[in-house]
Amino acid sequence: MGNKNISMAVIRRLPKYYRYLADLLAKDIQRISSKELSEIIGFTASQIRQDLNNFGGFGQQGYGYNVEALHKEIGKILGLDRNYNAILVGAGNLGQALTNYTGFKNAGFDIKAVFDANPKMIGLKLRDYEIMDSDEMEKYIVDNAVDIAILCIPKNGAQEVADKLVKLGIKGIWNFAPIDLEVPNDVIVESVNLTESLFTLSYLMKEGTEI
Amino acid sequence: MGNKNISMAVIRRLPKYYRYLADLLAKDIQRISSKELSEIIGFTASQIRQDLNNFGGFGQQGYGYNVEALHKEIGKILGLDRNYNAILVGAGNLGQALTNYTGFKNAGFDIKAVFDANPKMIGLKLRDYEIMDSDEMEKYIVDNAVDIAILCIPKNGAQEVADKLVKLGIKGIWNFAPIDLEVPNDVIVESVNLTESLFTLSYLMKEGTEI
Repeated sequence: MGNKNISMAVIRRLPKYYRYLADLLAKDIQRISSKELSEIIGFTASQIRQDLNNFGGFGQQGYGYNVEALHKEIGKILGLDRNYNAILVGAGNLGQALTNYTGFKNAGFDIKAVFDANPKMIGLKLRDYEIMDSDEMEKYIVDNAVDIAILCIPKNGAQEVADKLVKLGIKGIWNFAPIDLEVPNDVIVESVNLTESLFTLSYLMKEGTEI
Repeated sequence: MGNKNISMAVIRRLPKYYRYLADLLAKDIQRISSKELSEIIGFTASQIRQDLNNFGGFGQQGYGYNVEALHKEIGKILGLDRNYNAILVGAGNLGQALTNYTGFKNAGFDIKAVFDANPKMIGLKLRDYEIMDSDEMEKYIVDNAVDIAILCIPKNGAQEVADKLVKLGIKGIWNFAPIDLEVPNDVIVESVNLTESLFTLSYLMKEGTEI
């Protein structure tokens, strides 16, 4: 695809557009100007036009945006016009929470198997899953089409698991381990570091103002 | 404090510095040059110097950084030289996972009470907590010193809860509800939107390269 020069800041705004457009659709709103969209979403109208121009515009002078069409297009840009098979590694508290959350499946991200290294966890039922032994992960990936691995494991061992996943051809890792994984360029790691988010909150509270 | 003009990008890198410096301390490494730090952390040495200069530098020509002192200073900058009393609202899967994670308490963020609106949840034990009725939240906040509220509730109702929290003087909200909360300027909201993170992953996978 040809979007290599889109900045990460723009990319991180796209899911937000997608969410607001879904809200508008749910309210049966058919079209919206960039000014109105700006009032709802909190970006300037010029920012919105600039952002969307990166992907070809979509707006029509004097008409604004067709909400349904724009929602669909942004979904396509985000890669949401297909389904993803995921596995989850690490069935601790957070892993269980993610497995139990049905919103991901509704968005096309389907957790197909859950692995844990703790013998006490293996074989336990978690929603529709029987937790599998992490030692079986490699065989599972060989035998099944897996697009994304969700890592909910501690820092220690996370790089080793990532190395295995990469070797088996996994191209997307959603990483909750508090470590910056090293992977080849063609593998995407998207990390969620909750502690870093919490420390950002305390920093901003200390400064006493939102930025 | 005087750091109002620090960009959000710099701020979001601070917890990462803090984490890497803690790793170095754990390995008993006393000092490090910005070049060495750069190799570990993956930012350029000039970026590191620039970032830290925002807060007064800390490095000494020809010596580099004193790891322990820098770790401590960044901790102070992040507001980690004090403790925070938190309450958690919404004891579903994610709320339970956050409550059960001991790392936050170790970092000075102590969840003191857990609330839920679901009658089936109220009174249940969650770690050391008996889940309290959300209707008691306001009284609890009046009677106890609460710094931070962690919102693990659905989108609907989240703004209403935030409004209550603001009214009661809460200055920090760690928000996991998929909604952009509207709060006065002196209240900080730090949001974690897992679905947006997942959509960023799928976007980057579609583009086939890390940015």
